[in-house]
Amino acid sequence: MAQLRVALAQIDVTVGDLDGNSDQVLSWSRQAAAAGAHLVAFPEMALTGYPAEDLVLRESFGAASTQLLGRVARRLAEDGLGDLAVVVGYLDVDGGPRNAAALLHGGRIVARYFKHHLPNYGVFDEARYFRPGDRFVVVRLHGVDVALTVCEDLWQDGGPFSVAAAAEVGLVVNINGSPYERNKDDLRLDLAARRAREAGAAVAYVNMVGAQDELVYDGDSLVVSADGDVISRAGQYDEDLLVVDLDLPLAKSALTGPARGMLVERTVLSEQPLSPYPPQAPIVAERLSDPAEVWGALVTGTHDYARKNGFRSVVMGLSGGIDSALVATVARDALGADAVHVVGMPSRHSSIHSLADAADLATRLGLHWQVIPIAPIVDAYESTLAATGAPVSGLAAENLQSRARGTLLMALSNSAGHLVLTTGNKSELATGYSTLYGDSAGGFAPIKDVPKTMVWELARWRNTAAEQRGEIPPIPQSSIDKPPSAELAPGQLDSDSLPPYDVLDAVLADYIDRDLGRSALLDRGHDPEVVEKVIRLVDQAEYKRRQYPPGPKISLKAFGRDRRLPITSRWRETVPGGSHETAGSHETAGSHETPALPR
Amino acid sequence: MAQLRVALAQIDVTVGDLDGNSDQVLSWSRQAAAAGAHLVAFPEMALTGYPAEDLVLRESFGAASTQLLGRVARRLAEDGLGDLAVVVGYLDVDGGPRNAAALLHGGRIVARYFKHHLPNYGVFDEARYFRPGDRFVVVRLHGVDVALTVCEDLWQDGGPFSVAAAAEVGLVVNINGSPYERNKDDLRLDLAARRAREAGAAVAYVNMVGAQDELVYDGDSLVVSADGDVISRAGQYDEDLLVVDLDLPLAKSALTGPARGMLVERTVLSEQPLSPYPPQAPIVAERLSDPAEVWGALVTGTHDYARKNGFRSVVMGLSGGIDSALVATVARDALGADAVHVVGMPSRHSSIHSLADAADLATRLGLHWQVIPIAPIVDAYESTLAATGAPVSGLAAENLQSRARGTLLMALSNSAGHLVLTTGNKSELATGYSTLYGDSAGGFAPIKDVPKTMVWELARWRNTAAEQRGEIPPIPQSSIDKPPSAELAPGQLDSDSLPPYDVLDAVLADYIDRDLGRSALLDRGHDPEVVEKVIRLVDQAEYKRRQYPPGPKISLKAFGRDRRLPITSRWRETVPGGSHETAGSHETAGSHETPALPR
Repeated sequence: MAQLRVALAQIDVTVGDLDGNSDQVLSWSRQAAAAGAHLVAFPEMALTGYPAEDLVLRESFGAASTQLLGRVARRLAEDGLGDLAVVVGYLDVDGGPRNAAALLHGGRIVARYFKHHLPNYGVFDEARYFRPGDRFVVVRLHGVDVALTVCEDLWQDGGPFSVAAAAEVGLVVNINGSPYERNKDDLRLDLAARRAREAGAAVAYVNMVGAQDELVYDGDSLVVSADGDVISRAGQYDEDLLVVDLDLPLAKSALTGPARGMLVERTVLSEQPLSPYPPQAPIVAERLSDPAEVWGALVTGTHDYARKNGFRSVVMGLSGGIDSALVATVARDALGADAVHVVGMPSRHSSIHSLADAADLATRLGLHWQVIPIAPIVDAYESTLAATGAPVSGLAAENLQSRARGTLLMALSNSAGHLVLTTGNKSELATGYSTLYGDSAGGFAPIKDVPKTMVWELARWRNTAAEQRGEIPPIPQSSIDKPPSAELAPGQLDSDSLPPYDVLDAVLADYIDRDLGRSALLDRGHDPEVVEKVIRLVDQAEYKRRQYPPGPKISLKAFGRDRRLPITSRWRETVPGGSHETAGSHETAGSHETPALPR
Repeated sequence: MAQLRVALAQIDVTVGDLDGNSDQVLSWSRQAAAAGAHLVAFPEMALTGYPAEDLVLRESFGAASTQLLGRVARRLAEDGLGDLAVVVGYLDVDGGPRNAAALLHGGRIVARYFKHHLPNYGVFDEARYFRPGDRFVVVRLHGVDVALTVCEDLWQDGGPFSVAAAAEVGLVVNINGSPYERNKDDLRLDLAARRAREAGAAVAYVNMVGAQDELVYDGDSLVVSADGDVISRAGQYDEDLLVVDLDLPLAKSALTGPARGMLVERTVLSEQPLSPYPPQAPIVAERLSDPAEVWGALVTGTHDYARKNGFRSVVMGLSGGIDSALVATVARDALGADAVHVVGMPSRHSSIHSLADAADLATRLGLHWQVIPIAPIVDAYESTLAATGAPVSGLAAENLQSRARGTLLMALSNSAGHLVLTTGNKSELATGYSTLYGDSAGGFAPIKDVPKTMVWELARWRNTAAEQRGEIPPIPQSSIDKPPSAELAPGQLDSDSLPPYDVLDAVLADYIDRDLGRSALLDRGHDPEVVEKVIRLVDQAEYKRRQYPPGPKISLKAFGRDRRLPITSRWRETVPGGSHETAGSHETAGSHETPALPR
């Protein structure tokens, strides 16, 4: 056996920031060397950020990334880090764009591995961007054979990990840009353990943290032994350098030739094992609870979107209801109270408690609070439209109020440079229960992937967590307890238009996240009338979702690139054959927004 | 040689309308039989519509399409069309989702071919949806060997068409869902001719017409001889049954076994050639001019989006400028004058000629015209915001006017059920020269892929075409001649903020359509200062484009799924390395909209 100290650099990079990202690789490599590491691994596409989308196809970008790698290798050596083996993800365009991992050592690019398995489902489009690799790459370091792999390679049976066994390596490094979704951490650990046993080798899994548009990376870097036991594990969402001492088998006499039919490329850096040294005690970070984990994703997503796009502050409406209360709390946790501007915009239909609850929340959190009544603006619209001989009423009048608020927030944003946060939740977005250019206006929507029932759960969890820390619970109890209402008409309640949220969310999880059709939904025991209504609402709201701002993905299937459905579609789950109902009939969608566009 | 009468059914189907689409297959098959055809071919995915996007992955949808095929075969026979060979595209989920072509005959599914080459670039995501086929499928009909292929198979060297030569077939049928883009028709014909020579067989290419969200299908179905000469060609955009009599080589004695290493599946329907009959003279439709072709795409896109989503009417603002004048004319040509409601919404900055030009256009086209002054609404916003101690000015004040107009149009839509049309062009969308939730509000944007210079060209062309038909030219000359202005501030002109449009559009075509980086742009001879400015404007406007409504693709690369760039990105073409400038600096984007969201 031979010792090796491996460091996993769980860092937050930015798409396109080639210089900034390579500076990070330098500075974290310095820390790894200072910690005595012999090898440090950085995430997938650490030099370019991930996913860089169509930038990958632009010649200037690919050339810059490919050239940068050699520069990073030289800078590492110039900084006296030439003895450290540095594994880093980057875009390689020699011979077509590749999702690549390189091992840098002694000022040189020692080995290059190209990802074999290119995910092309859910949020991933890697078949659009990359050519798959077909070589297995092994580097011998201090007498230990170390193999390189990238992300999805871990998720496929019969992939490089099965070759690792035949090639008799001691350690497989797996670098990742693996986005957060609920319960994925359990899956990851199971997979890493399974692949370690398949490879008969320890596995070092490093993932990024931070967020890129709708994707949040939670880190959760880990090392498992060849038996599949966890040796060390990092926390979630925070940058970290996980340092682990491993006892690994010495490399066998150099095998050459293919393993399991795959070309194996071997490089020897050093045959001699290290002199024995006292190992450090490995760190295994405690796991977050489910709500804490989701909260971390929302806060990270909001923080990184604002920061990486150059915003120092946000502005949003506070209605006194639970959604905006939760979003304001996320914003405060992400950016600090001083960066959060909240606005109460009462109308003639706002209840007395609404403004009081909103003000209460602002006070508890110490946010910038102002009140702007919208009645004079709504009056101006209504009298203008009445003068045309076509006065507004019903849903059109409701939407006017919401749009007046959206326009006011945009004016505040335009004047002061705030990012507008949108407060809609996933249940609303699914059913189209929102007003285009009204409450859906904004640059980022922190809870767009959070169903209403989870909104309440998170609010309760956040309050309890505050109490446990001896802080004031941020969210007023009455915001949690009151029946949900858009307050756009007298006495209006969400329950006038929608099924109870626990019933609705259960159907939505099956129809959207699990993509079940009508008969499968009925087989799951959902009420047929509710199923019919929910499917109709969801299908009719596709056009609205297309114009919605981005927000962090936390579920199995978030609206956005995860779920790509046509706007124009006559497929109706509720009517076998799909054509008996006109697509877009003129009935209202049972929400406070008429389906103003495709009906 | 043997005769065969082939009909190409160039039809307009709707995504998800399985019953309606199969009814169309029935009725066009009846027409083909009445015209004496022996084989009729329908487009790719004719039963489901194309692209059906993630519906393809839904179990209920796939099962419905697969089952429908057998029903269509039986219904054809019940209708007395059992002798007609019917080639139709559909989704086949036996053994994984396939983009499939079936040949139906005698009430049975005689052969099934699965598309080999799955496009996964530009607007296409077929690697997400389909498993590729690997068999070559030949059906002998009246003594002629007919091979089936689907769309992209035609675009690939060494694909099924090279197998066709080895398998010695007489005719290759190629069914398509091939979206329009400028100059693609020339490419198509060249390709079909090349493949015919490669296959040593005639090629019958059938394409759909109509539109699906952002994609327009222009038809252009055609038949070329084995020498690559055009025999017959349909027009663009209109449904049609192109009937062609072909003299084809008799099938050789049945070859079995693979051809060029590919499994060949052969079915014999009838060995005996037809008795000689007098052929019809083939039709070769005249080609449209470039502006006529683009116009057809805009009209078809607008018509189908409105009609397939259940709208009977549209509403839009008319500024007196060229963009809204052109969109109103497109809408009138698409839906008829009675379906088009146009609204003049003058502000204190509107010039006298603006309202007059708008009214003039409405009169010329016979549209529903009304005037709604926005001053009282803008005043209400301004005094409300002034009362908060933070009065609006500059860009924030400009955007308020635009948002008041957007909200008024949405109110009219909500009240009367109109679809709101958005009037922005591609040059604006590229540079972010528009107001989110203001002039960018709406359900469909007919000219979003039309650069400003082409807007003028189309306006002149449309006027000339009207004159040639003895009609009143729809677009007032002063709308064409006046210098472009947003009229949101006194004396404002587009040229205050943007380079001249001919200069701008030339850079945009290279930066967006051709995806050139900075040094390649300079190599093309563009002015360095203009390049720097344009790149900055385009990159900063990504967040706005994400919330823009859909509109018809006419260019090599339309905004939307054709060009997928991150919002969060520090890559700057103008600064090698990409990180010296903060992504989203707080400077204005030089437009009448502040970059209110990601700066």
